[in-house]
Amino acid sequence: MSVAAEKKRPVKELRDQLRRDQIVSAARACVVRHGFHAASMGQIAAEAHMSVGQIYRYFPSKEAIVHAIVERIVARRLEWMVDREQQIDFAARFANRRHVDASEEERSERVLLLEITAEATRNPAVADIVRAADRRLRGQAVELVRGNYPELTEAEAAARVEFVTVLSEGSAFRGVTEQIGSPALLEGIYRDVLQKLFPRMTERGLS
Amino acid sequence: MSVAAEKKRPVKELRDQLRRDQIVSAARACVVRHGFHAASMGQIAAEAHMSVGQIYRYFPSKEAIVHAIVERIVARRLEWMVDREQQIDFAARFANRRHVDASEEERSERVLLLEITAEATRNPAVADIVRAADRRLRGQAVELVRGNYPELTEAEAAARVEFVTVLSEGSAFRGVTEQIGSPALLEGIYRDVLQKLFPRMTERGLS
Repeated sequence: MSVAAEKKRPVKELRDQLRRDQIVSAARACVVRHGFHAASMGQIAAEAHMSVGQIYRYFPSKEAIVHAIVERIVARRLEWMVDREQQIDFAARFANRRHVDASEEERSERVLLLEITAEATRNPAVADIVRAADRRLRGQAVELVRGNYPELTEAEAAARVEFVTVLSEGSAFRGVTEQIGSPALLEGIYRDVLQKLFPRMTERGLS
Repeated sequence: MSVAAEKKRPVKELRDQLRRDQIVSAARACVVRHGFHAASMGQIAAEAHMSVGQIYRYFPSKEAIVHAIVERIVARRLEWMVDREQQIDFAARFANRRHVDASEEERSERVLLLEITAEATRNPAVADIVRAADRRLRGQAVELVRGNYPELTEAEAAARVEFVTVLSEGSAFRGVTEQIGSPALLEGIYRDVLQKLFPRMTERGLS
């Protein structure tokens, strides 16, 4: 949306957006603190300082709130992928647990994704949300890799992206366990593996 | 326990063991079907066809049941690690989603571990259970690797085990998403990576 259009945006629309953000933040806090199931519409309403009726005016179901939570995580990750300044050293990140949860925001996202993935195993609507998010993120990542490695076919780029995603999600999943192995040795393994898949990779990202 | 000792085992002890198994199975079914929080002691009792009072006679808390669930998963995995006949081709397994959930048992375990790991982020008692299980499994895996690769230091073996665990848990975690990449290309990547870490690895395991 252009700046001019943004200015003309009706007050009601802006207020609605604010309310939706408020509800999504409240739902995130509830899920992180109590788990997916314990986070009821009533609890989300209390956390957002709104009535349950108000929540339903903005989101017809808990799945709709989950969709908004996942959309926001996807938006942040897509932004992160294209923002060169933010690109980090994958090998160092994967090899050091503390890097995985560098911020409270990241820790929350890890817990949210655990909860939502667990729910996806039994709730087809939530599984669809997770799959759609994964498709978008993977699509963008494949496009980025193909831009940097035009010699790869789309299938080759997709396989590399899938492999790195497994490393990334495996590292995040293991965030709850102790890391007793040497981060330096582990970082060496990751660096060798990633270097082979992305030979022009620098310390600043996959490019 | 020897066969002779097993025979002498009092009837009560055997019956108690049977009851405990019954409760653990019921709890597993509840968690898989409804999630960690929705699986209340009352629901577990109903599923096990027992009273809540009876459940408490065998398990003082839900955490104690979680501990028993995790212990059984650990026992099965430890057995699987040393049983050469059951050792499978890791590269093929990681590269093909359908191999990850080859059996209903494996699918259940994946859901259970997702639920329990999510709970571990907010419940220190559950986090301790997960960490202790991880320590035992990793300890056994490091010992096996060192047996097959005596040239590795303990730290080097531990780093390789940690890396393979990340691959394994990342693959399981991604089980809920679609696999659109080519399993053949992905298998090639896994095979190269694993071959480098375990050069004497055959298709039958890490040895």
